[in-house]
Amino acid sequence: MDLNAVLEGQKEEINRELDRVVPPEQTPPVDLHRAMRHSLFAGGKRLRPIMVLEACALAGAERSLALNAALGIECLHTFTLIHDDLPCMDDDDFRRGVPTCHKVFGEDLAVLAGDALVFLGLDLLARPAEGVCPETTLEVVRVGTRTLGSRGVIGGQVIDLQAEGQIPSLEVLESIHIHKTAFLVMGSLEIGGLIGGADKLHRERLREYGRHFGLAFQITDDVLDVTGESRVLGKTAGKDQQQQKMTYPALMGVDRSRQEARAHVEQAVASLEGYGQKESWFFRMLAHSLLDRVS
Amino acid sequence: MDLNAVLEGQKEEINRELDRVVPPEQTPPVDLHRAMRHSLFAGGKRLRPIMVLEACALAGAERSLALNAALGIECLHTFTLIHDDLPCMDDDDFRRGVPTCHKVFGEDLAVLAGDALVFLGLDLLARPAEGVCPETTLEVVRVGTRTLGSRGVIGGQVIDLQAEGQIPSLEVLESIHIHKTAFLVMGSLEIGGLIGGADKLHRERLREYGRHFGLAFQITDDVLDVTGESRVLGKTAGKDQQQQKMTYPALMGVDRSRQEARAHVEQAVASLEGYGQKESWFFRMLAHSLLDRVS
Repeated sequence: MDLNAVLEGQKEEINRELDRVVPPEQTPPVDLHRAMRHSLFAGGKRLRPIMVLEACALAGAERSLALNAALGIECLHTFTLIHDDLPCMDDDDFRRGVPTCHKVFGEDLAVLAGDALVFLGLDLLARPAEGVCPETTLEVVRVGTRTLGSRGVIGGQVIDLQAEGQIPSLEVLESIHIHKTAFLVMGSLEIGGLIGGADKLHRERLREYGRHFGLAFQITDDVLDVTGESRVLGKTAGKDQQQQKMTYPALMGVDRSRQEARAHVEQAVASLEGYGQKESWFFRMLAHSLLDRVS
Repeated sequence: MDLNAVLEGQKEEINRELDRVVPPEQTPPVDLHRAMRHSLFAGGKRLRPIMVLEACALAGAERSLALNAALGIECLHTFTLIHDDLPCMDDDDFRRGVPTCHKVFGEDLAVLAGDALVFLGLDLLARPAEGVCPETTLEVVRVGTRTLGSRGVIGGQVIDLQAEGQIPSLEVLESIHIHKTAFLVMGSLEIGGLIGGADKLHRERLREYGRHFGLAFQITDDVLDVTGESRVLGKTAGKDQQQQKMTYPALMGVDRSRQEARAHVEQAVASLEGYGQKESWFFRMLAHSLLDRVS
């Protein structure tokens, strides 16, 4: 099996299903639904929803049980991107090579499109699937609300904003990456596991994988920003440096950043020990693929 | 019984319980939690959460069953106020006589405080209460997400923003008020009813009451903006006219607006017909109290 082929196939499935559950552009208010769709279909890799589905399969259940939750996670992820890009936050004009929501629709509609994606995302998490008990679905919703809330991803954005101009420290940087990146990966894996029937111990392992995967993902992203081409990165290379963002390469240099990423990938893979080689193939390959980007 | 005394007592209860469920100011990120609390405790009447509790009681169950849901509704309501007041939306400096969130904490934190209140609000809706089955709690969550989403309150804000500068029409104005005001009242009543065990017919009646109550509430608010004192209104009187907002008095004059409000109050009360006089006392009195404000 080839990881990229698997990812591509699943991405197409997610895109197709997202198109089905998001109100069409013609549905009033037209501009709001256009703004939501603009950002939702701006070419993401759909990594988080794919992880929801794969975590459900790893727990031993049909992937389709977790489909609505996977779509919900992508809506929530897109909401964080739209609000992060706003002029009053990171003030980004492009995302994945496409003009950001507020550049196309204005700041007011961008705020509201983000808001509406939160409600759509949580509605999808709350939709019952046949064969999943309502207690589990409720727990899925609450993993979502806690993952994103004031002590989760939203809290991370506050720490990030307040870190600008501060003296860089590994502690602050890791806290930003854990909150802003790792939490949503951890939440995606836990939600997939929950729906798949994983017990507490297994869900802890999935979260452990997600934590290390999220950190490795962010570190390799930082490294790519220094060494990579804009094409691979999907955003303007060198932007972090321009904005004087705290990054791993700025703090410890490119080589040590690569080593750090490798260590997190190894720890992510180690957390899969309890699973068979065949069952855990996807998550092992996915973790290793992060290192290909920066080696 | 005196309606104002009842409202005052319930408001105090809601305030006390909100203080318990919202992270303390000292919890990091400190500024985010301060911003959330600033707007949550800026002196609201807590009408919507009180309606959740009373609808639960009207359905024949213990009010306390609906407490978390009531608190969740107030968080969601406060979110709508924070985002509506943003410079890119209505650009309001004061709300309930207190500086708005972005005036005190900046635009970035105001956006994020609103976002965080959504996740806290939906988390509260999703918290299971003893004696309420998980299917019902899931339905409560989904009434919340649908009430607020792109075809609900958020959609209403888009219609409102786009109506500025348009030729005023009763159709557009009523659509704005239904989406922005009545929907959340209807959702509050339906959620209280659901938790209290109301069947479909009763929930429809509650929503009918909410629709007319919400419209009467907004019309009397519009009238107060023209005739009232800022003290009663809690915001600067005459502001609608300054901003050239579409309002009922601007469209049909003060006298016909009063008549329109009275008609909606009567229809709200009529929707309570299936309930006993004693059971429905609160909602009847509450509807009539709207007219006292403008007569």
